[in-house]
Amino acid sequence: MATKGNLLYAQSGGPTAVINTSVWGALQAARSCAAVGDIYAAYHGIQGVLDGELFDLAAEDQLQFAKMPHTPGAVLGSCRYRLQQEATEDYQKILDIFRRRNIRYFLYNGGNDSMDTCNKLHHFFQEQNYECAVIGVPKTIDNDLVLTDHSPGFASSVRCVSTLMAEVTVDACSYTTPQILLFEIMGRNAGWLTAGSALARLSGFGPDLIYLPERTFSLENFLRDVENLQAQKPHIVIAVSESLRLADGRYVKELSGTKEHDVFGHEQMGGAAQLLAAYLKKNLHTKVRAIEFSLVQRAACHLASQVDLYEAYHVAEYAVKLAVSGVSGKMAALQRQSNQPYQVDYKAVDLDAVANAEKKLPSSWINAAGNDVTDEFISYCLPLISNREDAGRYDVPLELTDNGLPCFAYLKKQLLL
Amino acid sequence: MATKGNLLYAQSGGPTAVINTSVWGALQAARSCAAVGDIYAAYHGIQGVLDGELFDLAAEDQLQFAKMPHTPGAVLGSCRYRLQQEATEDYQKILDIFRRRNIRYFLYNGGNDSMDTCNKLHHFFQEQNYECAVIGVPKTIDNDLVLTDHSPGFASSVRCVSTLMAEVTVDACSYTTPQILLFEIMGRNAGWLTAGSALARLSGFGPDLIYLPERTFSLENFLRDVENLQAQKPHIVIAVSESLRLADGRYVKELSGTKEHDVFGHEQMGGAAQLLAAYLKKNLHTKVRAIEFSLVQRAACHLASQVDLYEAYHVAEYAVKLAVSGVSGKMAALQRQSNQPYQVDYKAVDLDAVANAEKKLPSSWINAAGNDVTDEFISYCLPLISNREDAGRYDVPLELTDNGLPCFAYLKKQLLL
Repeated sequence: MATKGNLLYAQSGGPTAVINTSVWGALQAARSCAAVGDIYAAYHGIQGVLDGELFDLAAEDQLQFAKMPHTPGAVLGSCRYRLQQEATEDYQKILDIFRRRNIRYFLYNGGNDSMDTCNKLHHFFQEQNYECAVIGVPKTIDNDLVLTDHSPGFASSVRCVSTLMAEVTVDACSYTTPQILLFEIMGRNAGWLTAGSALARLSGFGPDLIYLPERTFSLENFLRDVENLQAQKPHIVIAVSESLRLADGRYVKELSGTKEHDVFGHEQMGGAAQLLAAYLKKNLHTKVRAIEFSLVQRAACHLASQVDLYEAYHVAEYAVKLAVSGVSGKMAALQRQSNQPYQVDYKAVDLDAVANAEKKLPSSWINAAGNDVTDEFISYCLPLISNREDAGRYDVPLELTDNGLPCFAYLKKQLLL
Repeated sequence: MATKGNLLYAQSGGPTAVINTSVWGALQAARSCAAVGDIYAAYHGIQGVLDGELFDLAAEDQLQFAKMPHTPGAVLGSCRYRLQQEATEDYQKILDIFRRRNIRYFLYNGGNDSMDTCNKLHHFFQEQNYECAVIGVPKTIDNDLVLTDHSPGFASSVRCVSTLMAEVTVDACSYTTPQILLFEIMGRNAGWLTAGSALARLSGFGPDLIYLPERTFSLENFLRDVENLQAQKPHIVIAVSESLRLADGRYVKELSGTKEHDVFGHEQMGGAAQLLAAYLKKNLHTKVRAIEFSLVQRAACHLASQVDLYEAYHVAEYAVKLAVSGVSGKMAALQRQSNQPYQVDYKAVDLDAVANAEKKLPSSWINAAGNDVTDEFISYCLPLISNREDAGRYDVPLELTDNGLPCFAYLKKQLLL
């Protein structure tokens, strides 16, 4: 029997509502692999590896793992550290730690930047003839990773955004007073999550207009769109991406660029929705309210999608199996098999192709006027937040605690000496 | 047998997550009263009465009422219309409608302003010798109605605010980077809901500092409080009420009062948290993020408190019983019998005493430094969001729909001719 190799798991980048469920899936899979010895986690991603801050994941209280589906943030700690090509010292440090701890399987959970780090390490280990399987575990609410049908984390954010938007819209419709609600939705360069807000319509109260960063934003067209709607209905709901850009390349949020300062001398920088609300107020003399869900969009575990939780668990499980099978330089990806019933398979895709690529919303999923999504997008997105039993429903009951507050997983993270 | 009188129910002011459950409770109670004939609702509160816009509540599809606990906003329509003492024309109009429809029981669901309207109508009907029982049904997320232990709607907003705050705080603690989170919480003049954010601590991730409008706000003390904490921990969480005031009487949000204008020429008016975030950034050179949950605080039915739903139903039921018993000029109120186990009774209190009074947080429930609540407040507040079966748990299952989105009640509101 070959000597066992140890496994290291780490989280990187912005959290999603389901990344901690992936930790659980990876741990369970690793425990059942005869080839895996110790199961470590790095504290604060690759930064923790560089600092030698590892801990024994398998030694943690196992009861805590059942709480992972309710636990937002990065339970292992995250980082924004990105390995630079020329940072030879970093690579050497990592290799030293890996050798010292006999780490032969490395799983890195993250988005585009993290997949780049993952890929660089894979190539470095190969050059150095250090045998280690490096596998990426996908995760991003932005849904902009290529070669995977979607990324874990996206669906839960869609469910959060569409639920909150529906509820707030119902509230705003309580009065006869005309009102415009402007919701600002997260998404670095891609409009997936903003587009996902369209699902709120299934509750009867969704956005009337959706503006995505995939299309150049025009203030004139925006004003005309809203004016046209005002002739039809008193309450207008608009979803705008935080990263909308004008034809001259400037972000909409940079429109406050006159660099005005508040009473403390600090530069005021409102978001896109706040700026556009001011624009509508000035031009339409209507009540306008800008709403930004902020970090709630990625932290609202209590609204996590059952399908998303299920897939976050299983994609990490699959990633461990890939690593143990001797594959390296791959990302575990999701491949949709069918939509009715919704079914996915897991597959390995090349990190070379994933790293730093960015998946935008296909042009055919945006309407001609550039202010809405098409039915094709809805068909793509809806099954991801489904609660149907046949859709890979996650079976950890999302039960309330006795005191009515959420109960989070807690890991001791006793660092290895 | 005496002639039956008809009953009219209406909603007023800002919605809460549970006001529609009160409609259900009132309807069920009214149906079982032999003295009640038709059961009407006004569309958009007293405004609807003035406009003669009434509809038959009992004729609505009964299946819709089971969805009330999931339905935010005002399902009957709300208004901000306040009866003025001298508006004799309004009173006469209302009396005419009441006579014409033989309305002998009027239940008005609202906060302070609405109780004032309710009280004025009660006295007017008495003067005019028009026999009609006028009863107020309490409702406000601000929890500032006097003579009731608490107001329906408050607890659900507390559960929403504390849950979201806990989840977002866990997220922010994922990184090693020091960060200050500033949450702005609703509350017109009282700090109840801001204080309620303290419950997030029971999840392990709550606010470090809480600033209430009951205490004069000092920028200097605020800065010192935060600096002291920075010496102890990297992540600092602060809850501020939207209605904080400085010693000179100005609202904190008025600190942007240099009347600067954005690029559209519109006056910029950030909230208290945004202003205070700018102040901390300038003075502490730390990462600071201001978060405002906005209307989510009162519309998040998916986070409604079970106790709150239960009480919203039963307080309305009690109000109907009061009306039918011949009492008028009262508000149905909650009286806490015991805290362990948590038990309430319902009682009638005088609208004369309730109308326009405002209940602030007692001084003894705020700590000496004026930056936190005491344990007494926690003991008061915690049972209200409890999920214990013995605490008057509401038995409508908060089940998810198949598509993962909320499903709202829909009333046809066919206006009476």
